[in-house]
Amino acid sequence: MSNIQFERIALIGIGLIGSSIARDVRELGLAGEVVVSTRSTETLKRAEELDLGDRYTMSAAEAVEGADLVIVSVPVGASESVAKEIAAHLEPGAIVTDVGSTKASVIAQMQPHMPEHVHFIPGHPLAGTEKSGPDAGFAGLFRGRWCIFTPPEGTDPEALAKVRRFWETLGSMVDEMDPEHHDKVLAIVSHLPHIIAYNIVGTADDLQTVTESEVIKYSASGFRDFTRLAASDPTMWRDVCLHNKDAILEMLSRFSEDLASLQRAIRWGDGDKLFDLFTRTRAVRRSIIEAGQDVEAPDFGRHALDPKPN
Amino acid sequence: MSNIQFERIALIGIGLIGSSIARDVRELGLAGEVVVSTRSTETLKRAEELDLGDRYTMSAAEAVEGADLVIVSVPVGASESVAKEIAAHLEPGAIVTDVGSTKASVIAQMQPHMPEHVHFIPGHPLAGTEKSGPDAGFAGLFRGRWCIFTPPEGTDPEALAKVRRFWETLGSMVDEMDPEHHDKVLAIVSHLPHIIAYNIVGTADDLQTVTESEVIKYSASGFRDFTRLAASDPTMWRDVCLHNKDAILEMLSRFSEDLASLQRAIRWGDGDKLFDLFTRTRAVRRSIIEAGQDVEAPDFGRHALDPKPN
Repeated sequence: MSNIQFERIALIGIGLIGSSIARDVRELGLAGEVVVSTRSTETLKRAEELDLGDRYTMSAAEAVEGADLVIVSVPVGASESVAKEIAAHLEPGAIVTDVGSTKASVIAQMQPHMPEHVHFIPGHPLAGTEKSGPDAGFAGLFRGRWCIFTPPEGTDPEALAKVRRFWETLGSMVDEMDPEHHDKVLAIVSHLPHIIAYNIVGTADDLQTVTESEVIKYSASGFRDFTRLAASDPTMWRDVCLHNKDAILEMLSRFSEDLASLQRAIRWGDGDKLFDLFTRTRAVRRSIIEAGQDVEAPDFGRHALDPKPN
Repeated sequence: MSNIQFERIALIGIGLIGSSIARDVRELGLAGEVVVSTRSTETLKRAEELDLGDRYTMSAAEAVEGADLVIVSVPVGASESVAKEIAAHLEPGAIVTDVGSTKASVIAQMQPHMPEHVHFIPGHPLAGTEKSGPDAGFAGLFRGRWCIFTPPEGTDPEALAKVRRFWETLGSMVDEMDPEHHDKVLAIVSHLPHIIAYNIVGTADDLQTVTESEVIKYSASGFRDFTRLAASDPTMWRDVCLHNKDAILEMLSRFSEDLASLQRAIRWGDGDKLFDLFTRTRAVRRSIIEAGQDVEAPDFGRHALDPKPN
């Protein structure tokens, strides 16, 4: 029995996310043909070496020709240029979706260019690692992770069902919400943590009283946890900051307000207030582990893998 | 050949750190006898069930009698009361050390009570997990991790060499510095990361526009990384905040200053500034991995352990 869900899938962008989709699609046999497109010759060559598709092209326009599913996996700031490039070449009835971390901005950039005869269904798989590029992807990245769709009003239910089924086959759990709510939720669960991680690593890197080698040597006492998020793709995260500005600024201002209050408790030696906060946050981690969204092993299970010089 | 380094080791406090020391000492046969002491009947009972020592007592004074090595592993705020309790019972020539995360405060609390005939050598093994209590400890916790000593001027070199050798046998790499520098270094590599993690988890927990169940469900997109540090022992961290106040307040103010500047770059769409910071921070993680202080595997190697509902 064939597992084919789409005759031809066009992957526009073949980084961590695009290449993970490619690997799943090939492994599960979900497409008659996979066409891979990226603007970088080097990345395209690497995708071919990794055997991620059936055909390879520098032209997104060429890639989408005849495709019944188009997945745009590029930094969100490049969404409009991709939309413009592919618009005239899209097959009637094709589903166009994306994986961008911001949704209102992607919709504003892409929807005006989409012809009436295609189904534009914006999506966002909440999965990834701090690595980037086609070598960083792997089959199974989306298993057990959420994928959020923000379908515009009047979206064809059949097209939506098809794209949902596709992500469910990749192992994802699927949710739907409006783009503004998505952008608020992601600002707190993803964008703020990344920005804070980038910031703290930057602060540590700037210190003169404590040397950089000390920061590195002693990082296992907490700091190293933040360096993972702060090692994420700079282009992707620059674009997220620029394209979800309002929600991010709102979360930053709440974070700073709370931090000022915590700082005051430290200054005035308010031990009870500190103890209460530190107890409440412990419960949040328990809920995340119970929801199957993190490992229970101490230290993220690092101990088993941790380098042990002695 | 005997591995014995001390005739009798007294462990005052038997939580994550104390119980990990106990396990290593027993496994490696480093002591003629291990005496375990804690103020909680429940914890003492559990330590006995886990067979962490040879003798068990609620009295720290009784525990240190005849001991040639005393290791105090209690929340730093309890240092003075322990020092007062044990002072009159310490054996001449005994080495008294601790594992506290702040050093100037621990010295101020303990040193005035130490009799002249003992060697007080404050220490801090930079190791641990987010778990606490005697069940959370494990043999090998200190392997490949740093242990920092802040010996007072005039410390007996032989006693210092003995306690260094002890930690090196546990697999640690040993450094020495003055207490003020230790407290500054730890404020940036450990205390600030914990405080920021507690704060962001608190902020997320407080939101009304985004439900708590959404924060939990979608936490794998970044937020979950912070919940690990924010699940650390509330008593220990309350005490750290109260006992390294000046260095922490200084680091918090640098962090906030940098965050304000980053926030401004987001507000004004300064993509180059964002890109530069996000690129610089990436290099810090590379250095940490090269220094053997974190795992190279993406996502802390979680993927192998990650719960996969589908």
